[in-house]
Amino acid sequence: MNTTIKVTLTDHSKINEVDFNNLLFGRVFTDHMFECDFVDGEWVNPVIKPYGPFEVEPSARVFHYGQAVFEGMKAFKDDNDTIFMFRPDENFRRINKSAKRLAIPEFPENLFFDGLTNLLRIEKNWIKKGRGNSLYIRPFVIATEGAIAASPASKYKFMIILSPAQSYYNQDVRVLFAEKYSRSADGGVGFAKAAGNYAAQFYPTSLAHEKGYQQIIWTDASTHEYLEEAGTMNIFFRVNDMLLTAPTNDRILDGVTRKSVIQLAKDNDIEIEIRRVSVAEIKEAAKKGELLEIFGSGTAAVINPIHGFEHGGDIFDLPKLENSYASLFKQQLMDIQYNLTEDPHNWRYKV
Amino acid sequence: MNTTIKVTLTDHSKINEVDFNNLLFGRVFTDHMFECDFVDGEWVNPVIKPYGPFEVEPSARVFHYGQAVFEGMKAFKDDNDTIFMFRPDENFRRINKSAKRLAIPEFPENLFFDGLTNLLRIEKNWIKKGRGNSLYIRPFVIATEGAIAASPASKYKFMIILSPAQSYYNQDVRVLFAEKYSRSADGGVGFAKAAGNYAAQFYPTSLAHEKGYQQIIWTDASTHEYLEEAGTMNIFFRVNDMLLTAPTNDRILDGVTRKSVIQLAKDNDIEIEIRRVSVAEIKEAAKKGELLEIFGSGTAAVINPIHGFEHGGDIFDLPKLENSYASLFKQQLMDIQYNLTEDPHNWRYKV
Repeated sequence: MNTTIKVTLTDHSKINEVDFNNLLFGRVFTDHMFECDFVDGEWVNPVIKPYGPFEVEPSARVFHYGQAVFEGMKAFKDDNDTIFMFRPDENFRRINKSAKRLAIPEFPENLFFDGLTNLLRIEKNWIKKGRGNSLYIRPFVIATEGAIAASPASKYKFMIILSPAQSYYNQDVRVLFAEKYSRSADGGVGFAKAAGNYAAQFYPTSLAHEKGYQQIIWTDASTHEYLEEAGTMNIFFRVNDMLLTAPTNDRILDGVTRKSVIQLAKDNDIEIEIRRVSVAEIKEAAKKGELLEIFGSGTAAVINPIHGFEHGGDIFDLPKLENSYASLFKQQLMDIQYNLTEDPHNWRYKV
Repeated sequence: MNTTIKVTLTDHSKINEVDFNNLLFGRVFTDHMFECDFVDGEWVNPVIKPYGPFEVEPSARVFHYGQAVFEGMKAFKDDNDTIFMFRPDENFRRINKSAKRLAIPEFPENLFFDGLTNLLRIEKNWIKKGRGNSLYIRPFVIATEGAIAASPASKYKFMIILSPAQSYYNQDVRVLFAEKYSRSADGGVGFAKAAGNYAAQFYPTSLAHEKGYQQIIWTDASTHEYLEEAGTMNIFFRVNDMLLTAPTNDRILDGVTRKSVIQLAKDNDIEIEIRRVSVAEIKEAAKKGELLEIFGSGTAAVINPIHGFEHGGDIFDLPKLENSYASLFKQQLMDIQYNLTEDPHNWRYKV
């Protein structure tokens, strides 16, 4: 297999046309992208080339059967212009775990990291210094074979595209606890970053928007009694000084930020229980004034405080805390990401 | 809105290169396709043009979030070269039901039928006479906007592509009853022809293939005690002379062939119960020799007899019947589709 990456650079960078102080998430892309094709049973022809549209068959299986998985990662720049990623080994493992569940061939580790680091070095000017600035990294795989039999494709495209980002959710986030709609089934693909998991959430989320809520915290599909995740974030609850979060299973994404928060909780001697969290106990704690925080964790949002929720017609507001766990974890995670502190768990990956 | 379809014909038909007696399902496409774009809140620029690849942004939301729905239909030709479709109004209604659940804008009825009938008339030579021959019709919608925020797109493409087909499953089909994996959740998108529903089945189906089974009959995700559908087919069970099939719900596709079979059962004075069908009762009936048939119904397969199944390590073979319900329904459905008999329910749609 030829794994030498062929590089073709653009002759016109778009970087000066971009207002880095007013970025909407995921709408501006850098000058180049990484691409690699799966043909005849192997990944071949890795290239870095100018970002732009490409030709796809209307019969490509991704359009018909949703054979597509992705990852979300970020690159950061410290004050010395050194570039870091955060635990990219976790994303590499997860994209292949997702791929396996969607019957997509796994991608080789050396090619993943070679493609990623070469692309980031070429696009280093797109990574801006300063807390909150980052370059969002989107590796993804799609089934490109033109054939509409309902079976796995024989041809795929692996790509990495990059989008400069500021912080993700800035608003006052309030959520609905799901009572009717579901994100995933036992024995399904909820643990995978499968494309279809996301579109399935858009309609219920639009109904939540109409009621004034930005997100949904999904509950288990069988009983709607247990709180699971928020679709783009894992979820933590703070009852008095105890943190609670659901265990991962085949319905819940094994979030990299989630597992980092769990480690930081231990490092900070914060008690944490990883167990099923019921809607009933959270509502009860809220009524007693013992529910001090809810926050989401995810690559795009890092840590996202949630200020209130609704369930069964009951509306709850959470207190505004001076020293929240959410702000503690966000501070500590970002300090590590921007190389402002020690990195005891070796989460930083120098590019 | 301009709804006049602009037609551009190919100057080189591929039809003479196609062996119509040796067609694999969904691999050969006709000379033209229909395309229409959703931009600025409306469906515009309907065109019929030569079939071929088109340019898509790598950031198109369909690749990342699976915002894609489709339909499966067929066109048939009778001995007088008249072209018919089978209940296309049902498919039109369903693609918009699917679209709504995936937060995709609904497609206008007049444009759906104008696009479809004009395309079929242009491609009439691709529809071959003779029982079993048909032109498979694949309308689909994909989110084309280049933006990777996890929210509904503002740009979509509706397309219709056509593929000549012979009968779908010819082999001796045996199935596994699902015990671990699931197709869909309560409150999920199983009732929609959402692209992501299909890729999610590929891996469990590949495990079934390794055990010598062609398909899986999915069970409810919560208990795995009730038989639901087969992913590309609804499922019927015959116990003695009684037919059983699961009611549609938000996990099960409301199949056009399924509802036609239910009507034909009534027309033939065959007793039918539409109710939850348990794995236990089907195994019990099989043990007693009372389970006479299992068959699937779907546009691609029409009626597909299933000759055996496995569940919990128990393997069952079904008897070979002279006068099966499966062959009766297949005969009657195809007689209607090929204009060989009366059409009391007005299922034929003359193109």
